[in-house]
Amino acid sequence: MVLKSFVEVHPDSHFPIENLPYGVFKPLQGGEPRPGVAIGDYVLDLSALSSAGLFDGPILSKSDCFLQPSLNKLLGMGRPAWKEARATLQKLLSFDNPTLRDNSSLRAKSLLPMDKVQMLLPTVIGDYTDFFSSLHHAKNCGTIFRGPENPIPPNWFHLPIAYHGRASSIVISGTDIIRPRGQGHPMGNSPPYFGPSQKLDFELEMAAVVGPGNELGKPIDVNEAADHIFGLVLMNDWSARDIQAWEYVPLGPFLGKSFGTTISPWIVTLDALEPFVCDAPKQEPHPLPYLVEKISKNYDISLEVQIKPAGLEHSSVLTRSNFNHLYWTVTQQLAHHTINGCNLRPGDIFGSGTISGPEPESLGCLLELTWNGQKPLVLDGVTRKFLEDGDEVIITGCCKGNGYNVGFGTCSGKILPATPL
Amino acid sequence: MVLKSFVEVHPDSHFPIENLPYGVFKPLQGGEPRPGVAIGDYVLDLSALSSAGLFDGPILSKSDCFLQPSLNKLLGMGRPAWKEARATLQKLLSFDNPTLRDNSSLRAKSLLPMDKVQMLLPTVIGDYTDFFSSLHHAKNCGTIFRGPENPIPPNWFHLPIAYHGRASSIVISGTDIIRPRGQGHPMGNSPPYFGPSQKLDFELEMAAVVGPGNELGKPIDVNEAADHIFGLVLMNDWSARDIQAWEYVPLGPFLGKSFGTTISPWIVTLDALEPFVCDAPKQEPHPLPYLVEKISKNYDISLEVQIKPAGLEHSSVLTRSNFNHLYWTVTQQLAHHTINGCNLRPGDIFGSGTISGPEPESLGCLLELTWNGQKPLVLDGVTRKFLEDGDEVIITGCCKGNGYNVGFGTCSGKILPATPL
Repeated sequence: MVLKSFVEVHPDSHFPIENLPYGVFKPLQGGEPRPGVAIGDYVLDLSALSSAGLFDGPILSKSDCFLQPSLNKLLGMGRPAWKEARATLQKLLSFDNPTLRDNSSLRAKSLLPMDKVQMLLPTVIGDYTDFFSSLHHAKNCGTIFRGPENPIPPNWFHLPIAYHGRASSIVISGTDIIRPRGQGHPMGNSPPYFGPSQKLDFELEMAAVVGPGNELGKPIDVNEAADHIFGLVLMNDWSARDIQAWEYVPLGPFLGKSFGTTISPWIVTLDALEPFVCDAPKQEPHPLPYLVEKISKNYDISLEVQIKPAGLEHSSVLTRSNFNHLYWTVTQQLAHHTINGCNLRPGDIFGSGTISGPEPESLGCLLELTWNGQKPLVLDGVTRKFLEDGDEVIITGCCKGNGYNVGFGTCSGKILPATPL
Repeated sequence: MVLKSFVEVHPDSHFPIENLPYGVFKPLQGGEPRPGVAIGDYVLDLSALSSAGLFDGPILSKSDCFLQPSLNKLLGMGRPAWKEARATLQKLLSFDNPTLRDNSSLRAKSLLPMDKVQMLLPTVIGDYTDFFSSLHHAKNCGTIFRGPENPIPPNWFHLPIAYHGRASSIVISGTDIIRPRGQGHPMGNSPPYFGPSQKLDFELEMAAVVGPGNELGKPIDVNEAADHIFGLVLMNDWSARDIQAWEYVPLGPFLGKSFGTTISPWIVTLDALEPFVCDAPKQEPHPLPYLVEKISKNYDISLEVQIKPAGLEHSSVLTRSNFNHLYWTVTQQLAHHTINGCNLRPGDIFGSGTISGPEPESLGCLLELTWNGQKPLVLDGVTRKFLEDGDEVIITGCCKGNGYNVGFGTCSGKILPATPL
């Protein structure tokens, strides 16, 4: 089926009618936070459509999920509601459906230019988990932090390693990031270093947004896990490598990560990503039965990171990678996360871990790209070991369809100097 | 000043008028969750007092913080509001104040016997951080997991090590804990163990409950940190040692902890604990300036853990410890947590880490008490390496004043068998 909307969408746009990603926004002219979907250069206000009675399917006609300040209620309703919403929106936006197309007052109320809104965090995030699912990243970090002998810990091939992240400091794309202060390794017999981080890094990640979730004590089967994942966003897991290297033994990353994590505003649904499914990598050794999937899916999502230093007009590409480099699938991550009975709640997010590919130009962070600062990157007039004050880091992600994109927009943030104590 | 309430309080009670800990409860006969304080064998319903206009001080008379289903709003208001609430409640409950004492209909409405209410989680917990602040515990765990050479990592004496915990699986005292399933170390060339945890453990901890908190990017000075801590609760950080040992390198504890964490329902305020302040331990090497306190306080809180196996009438003491064994203070923990700019929100909690003392009978978990199962504990007809199905673990904590206690009540949970997959 060829889809076409009455809203004009440029062929390069990330947001054609095939996509329809969900976010939460506030009109700049005032008003409360509300859910919307992106279509071309517009945001479609779902609260306006809901108030006009246009969600007339059996599930959504009885729900106030689009009159909420976050998407959590919709996420908790599960895939039948998500499918009904997608079908309703594709119908309402289609070229040959007059309902919205020919209702100029409703169109004026509900279709807002993107530059007239402020995007907000799309969900209330109860818990944020960060995985470590790129083999290339695990190998490179292991080599840098622990040496070239056995850089990958023996558990890595048996389970999707993860740690709990800090939920409070997740911010929406466009939020400035203040350079963190903290401790670093002592030199010789001196006390530890203390001051602004000298090894500030980005991490190219994506994150899965959890749907209904589970009760405490009730694991989710890996073959039902996809019904608990609403969609994906881009993520930059900013990292202070000097703070991290000193603090992380034995309990894992803490202040080296918790000063800020940026996500993109638009959640691209698994339904919209379905045409871009590709095979997951062969897993050897074979995983334990609770991680074996009947159908094991990755997604072919091209990712790119650019840096725009202060005062420069242009940005330079730092790296290009792809979501399909991940060894563990998001459904395996979810099944593993719940196998001990841990409960997931709607709106929780799972970071993928840094998405590094096999090539030197597909590494997902400066730690790897510059080998812990030993090999500075030289880019179009700029040399970098780690991030400097004023640097803006911009992640984009996009799936290329036949004549259209299903894209994620951008996930960006600029480094501000450490504030005086 | 000698305080005395018109509510009769047994001298052994944890909850005299000197204490007045805060919780959230639901009357068993029906009704919404609401804040209360404990007094003797009663819960005083703060929503009833608030509705009757009895919080008549300058701050609280204008607030609906006691008409909320959690304490978060009160916590966010800070110490001036907490002090006003405490003064108002001590006045209203005092022997010689007729306002509540002689108003039989208000008394009937607001003073509910504890066995007629259900206690709930007192706050909405945005983020849960677990520290590692007992030197004895760090040393014992290091020796067990990594060997006797340098069991304490070099960073330990320079910063209060911590990791992010799972907020969703924090439950209130009395909630059953289902034995988790998971992976353990492979034996030889076999795949990893998979099944119900064979090394299920408790951890004797306490947790600090965060008050106002801070904005992202704005650290809290260590000498102002006490104004951001509302009070303390007891905590049992249930741990599956086999799952933890296999998964925790390199990113720290994950599924070995996230199947359940139990807290006690009553938050004992720092104001109530003030008479039990004692000196914090001397810290050598001297900490970095951002961790140096003008006044460094610990609290003398006696802790005891009992086990009650299924079918036995009596419980046996597993260990006795004290909160004052902690090396890092809660105010140092808070200053460290925010030094990188990480934002804290009202209701966040900080676990202390397992509180082990120096003596063999003061160790805070079975991992240490049985030296990883090598030396089973023999107690009054019961032998234990780790917890068995049906075991109930009961933590109590109490400060002994002159003729009164300031106590925490109990923090308990019973192990249920793993559920079939």
